[in-house]
Amino acid sequence: MDKIYEQTMLFDFYGELLTEHQRRIYEDVVYNDLSLAEIAGEQGISRQGVHDLVKRCDRILQGYEDRLHLVERFVRARETVRQIEQLTMDSEAESPRVGENLIRIRELSRSLLEEL
Amino acid sequence: MDKIYEQTMLFDFYGELLTEHQRRIYEDVVYNDLSLAEIAGEQGISRQGVHDLVKRCDRILQGYEDRLHLVERFVRARETVRQIEQLTMDSEAESPRVGENLIRIRELSRSLLEEL
Repeated sequence: MDKIYEQTMLFDFYGELLTEHQRRIYEDVVYNDLSLAEIAGEQGISRQGVHDLVKRCDRILQGYEDRLHLVERFVRARETVRQIEQLTMDSEAESPRVGENLIRIRELSRSLLEEL
Repeated sequence: MDKIYEQTMLFDFYGELLTEHQRRIYEDVVYNDLSLAEIAGEQGISRQGVHDLVKRCDRILQGYEDRLHLVERFVRARETVRQIEQLTMDSEAESPRVGENLIRIRELSRSLLEEL
């Protein structure tokens, strides 16, 4: 995983465990792609302060991942759902009669990912 | 959900976020069904101390659930998997030709629950 993608995933899963202050700044860096200087100006703290806060949040979020493995599980579950989708498409080609159920299975397996 | 079932689910998802001491005692109460008096004797603390620790862990675990909703998501995902299983069985009855794929879909969707 590249760095920003990894930070985004960790934030998606554990962002709620940061303080509101940490969350806001981390979000600005990771999602909104603001520069450290911009955020520093906005928040009235030093550029170095923003940098340190982001590093600290990285460690906090990674600490949760090391214990709960939610990102790892999600990536695995997503791979499984892809396999289910592929199988439903193979089956549909082979037997149009069960097509409706297969479409529904595919929808359900996709919705699973949103439930995680 | 009944109380013990709820405690078990919360512990399964967030137990790693307790301290080792908390985890051991909570596990003895929730999984191993030891009495407060037994644990108190074992750990060399008062019965009231064990009781307070369990209550405190309940609050900590529920606090994580309030922010991350992993138990809630899992319960929902499990329901979705049940629907997928039902659909594969319906389809199999209707079209034995795609049976092999359907069996595989069913296995995959079950394995999803273990990945969560």
